[in-house]
Amino acid sequence: MRAAFYTGNRTFDLRDVPVAEPAPGEVRVRVAYNGICGTDMHAYHGAMDKRIGFNRVIGHEMSGTVSALGEGVSGLASGQPVVVRPLKPCGACPACAAGHSHICHNLKFLGLDTDGALQEEWCVPAYAVHRLPDGVRLDHAALCEPVAVACHDVRMGRVKAGEDVLVIGAGPIGVLIAMVARSQGAKVTISEINPHRLAAVEAMGFPTLDPTKVDVAAAITEATGGKGADVVFEVSGTQAGTNLMTEAAATRGRIVMVAIHTRKPEVDLFRFFWRELELIGVRVYEPEDFDRAIELIASGGIDCERMITDVRDLGEVASAFAALDAGGPSMKSLIRVAG
Amino acid sequence: MRAAFYTGNRTFDLRDVPVAEPAPGEVRVRVAYNGICGTDMHAYHGAMDKRIGFNRVIGHEMSGTVSALGEGVSGLASGQPVVVRPLKPCGACPACAAGHSHICHNLKFLGLDTDGALQEEWCVPAYAVHRLPDGVRLDHAALCEPVAVACHDVRMGRVKAGEDVLVIGAGPIGVLIAMVARSQGAKVTISEINPHRLAAVEAMGFPTLDPTKVDVAAAITEATGGKGADVVFEVSGTQAGTNLMTEAAATRGRIVMVAIHTRKPEVDLFRFFWRELELIGVRVYEPEDFDRAIELIASGGIDCERMITDVRDLGEVASAFAALDAGGPSMKSLIRVAG
Ligand SMILES: [Zn+2]
Ligand SMILES: [Zn+2]
Ligand SMILES: [Zn+2]
Ligand SMILES: [Zn+2]
Repeated sequence: MRAAFYTGNRTFDLRDVPVAEPAPGEVRVRVAYNGICGTDMHAYHGAMDKRIGFNRVIGHEMSGTVSALGEGVSGLASGQPVVVRPLKPCGACPACAAGHSHICHNLKFLGLDTDGALQEEWCVPAYAVHRLPDGVRLDHAALCEPVAVACHDVRMGRVKAGEDVLVIGAGPIGVLIAMVARSQGAKVTISEINPHRLAAVEAMGFPTLDPTKVDVAAAITEATGGKGADVVFEVSGTQAGTNLMTEAAATRGRIVMVAIHTRKPEVDLFRFFWRELELIGVRVYEPEDFDRAIELIASGGIDCERMITDVRDLGEVASAFAALDAGGPSMKSLIRVAG
Repeated sequence: MRAAFYTGNRTFDLRDVPVAEPAPGEVRVRVAYNGICGTDMHAYHGAMDKRIGFNRVIGHEMSGTVSALGEGVSGLASGQPVVVRPLKPCGACPACAAGHSHICHNLKFLGLDTDGALQEEWCVPAYAVHRLPDGVRLDHAALCEPVAVACHDVRMGRVKAGEDVLVIGAGPIGVLIAMVARSQGAKVTISEINPHRLAAVEAMGFPTLDPTKVDVAAAITEATGGKGADVVFEVSGTQAGTNLMTEAAATRGRIVMVAIHTRKPEVDLFRFFWRELELIGVRVYEPEDFDRAIELIASGGIDCERMITDVRDLGEVASAFAALDAGGPSMKSLIRVAG
C-alpha cells in the first residue's frame, strides 16, 4: 500500500509499504479522504520535528471504511464507513481520573505521536472509531474532525438559540464554529481582515465586519442595542483579537479561547471584573462532540461543498501542502488517499 | 447629627447636620459601625475625586438599626438591626434586562455616587436593606458587605467541598474568600508575600505559601498529586499573581478574577487552551450573597474577631484612614458611627 512519510523540512516521501494487521483491540481502516489542517502545516514547516521525527505518516482529519478487526473487537464489520477521533489518553493522570481524558496530561495524538491517515490502510484503537450513518459522502465526512472541534467549542461556550455570537478570525475552524453556532439558532457575525476569507464567508451567508475598516466592538454594541455579543470566539491568535474579545462581549458574556496563543498577549482583566466576563479555554473534543459533528454533516447542517475547496490524490500530497503554504482562497484541502 | 465629609486630598470634615427624613420608598438607618475598605482608601487618596467630588460622605460597609420608614415601606420596624447592600441599579439597561442588575451599566454605588454611612443617620432605598437575625453583634455585622463579596466570588467559582483552593493575596477580601471557601469544606491555601498578612492568616489556621521563598505552583502541584488547584482566586492584582493563577490551576480549573487590574497584564492564554481553564470575572454581589454573608456571620462561620483589628470613633475618622495608609498589621478597621 502507499503511505506518505513526512521526511523533514517541507518534504514528503511516498513509499510502498506492507499492510499491517490490526493488533488486539485495534481496527484497520481503509482511508478514503484526509484533510490538511493548521497543525499539519505546522509539522510541514518543521515546527514539530522534535515531537514527530523525520519518518512519520501524519494526517488525522479522515474518513474511511473498516477493512479488518483485531482480536476482541466487536460491533464493527468490514466495509462499515467510519471516522476516527485521533486521541489516545493515558487513563491514569489527574485529568483522566477527573473524566477529562481528551486533555489527558500525557495525551498522544494519532497522526502526530503515532503514524496517521496519509496511508491507505490505518490501524487505530477501536475506542477511537465512530460509525457513519448510511449515505454520508466520505469526502464530506473527512470534515468530522474539525467540525467536532467546532461542536466542542460551541458546546463549551453554551451557545443558545437567539444569542448574538461574534467569531474573530475566519480560518477553517472559525468558519466551522460559525456554521455550528448558526445551526443552533445563534445570530453569528464574523470579524476577519483577509479579503479571500471575507468573500468566502459572505458567500456562506454570514454577515462580516472588517476591523481594518470599522470599529468592530462599536458595531456589535450598536447592532445589539448596547448589549454586546453574548458569546465571542477568539480564533485569531492575535493581540488585536484579544483586545476585541473583551471590548465586544456583553455583560456576563462568554469568551471562548479557541486560538493557540504561543505568546502571552495583554488581556483587559479589568473588563473581566467590570462586566463579569467568562473566559473558557477549549481544546480538541470529547466523544459526544464527534457524534454531534457526524449528525450535523449527515443532516446538511454544515456547508461541506463550500468548505472543501480542493481535492488531490495522495501522490500530490507535497503539492497540496505547498499550495496551502502559498496562501490564497483555499479553505479546506482534502487528499484522496485510497483511490 | 454628626457626618464625616470627604473634602479632598486625604482630609475629612466632621460636621453637625440636620437629620433627613426618608423619602417615599426609603428607610432611615441609625448607623452603628462602618468598615473602611480599599475603595474608601482610593477615594481618600483623591483617585475618585472626579466621581465623588469634595463634599461627600463616603462609607458603605455598615451595620445599624432602622430609625424611620418612608412612605410605602413595609416589613420593617424601628429598632430592627439591618445591613445595607449599597447598590442602586438603573433597571433599564441590557444588564438589568438580563437579570444582572448588580453590574448594571449605569450602577450607582451608595457611599460613592450618593452620601454613605459615615454619618449617624443614613437614608437608603428600602430594597437595599437586609434584616439581621437576633443576637448578631453589630460590629461583626459591619463585615457583611465584604463577606458578601467573598460569598459572591466563591459562588461564582462553584467551589465544592473537598476541592483544592488557592487564594493569591491575603488582603481583607482574599482572607474572607478563604474563610467562606473553608466554611464550605474546601481545602484552602493562601499565597502572600507580606509578613504581617502571612502571620495573620496563619493565626486563622490557613496553610500559606510565600512566593518569595517557594515555587508556589510547584508546591500546589506536588501537594495535589500532580493535579493543581481546582479553583484559584486572583486577588493580588499583580503580574506575578496573574502568572501564578494559570500555573497553579488544575485541568478544567476555575480561576476567579477578583482583583481590579487597572493595567492589562500578560496572560498565558496557551495554558487556557491546553488545560481548558476557565476565567470568571466577578464584581460586587447579588442579594443572595448578602443573605449568605449574614447567615455565615450569624453562625460563626467567619472569624470576625481576628478580621476586625481596630475600632475607632467617628471623630477619629481621619486618623483611622491615616493609620491604614501607613500600612502595618491591620486587617479591617471599623468606625463606631452613632455611639
Ligand atoms: Zn487538525
Ligand atoms: Zn491521562
Ligand atoms: Zn468596600
Ligand atoms: Zn441597569
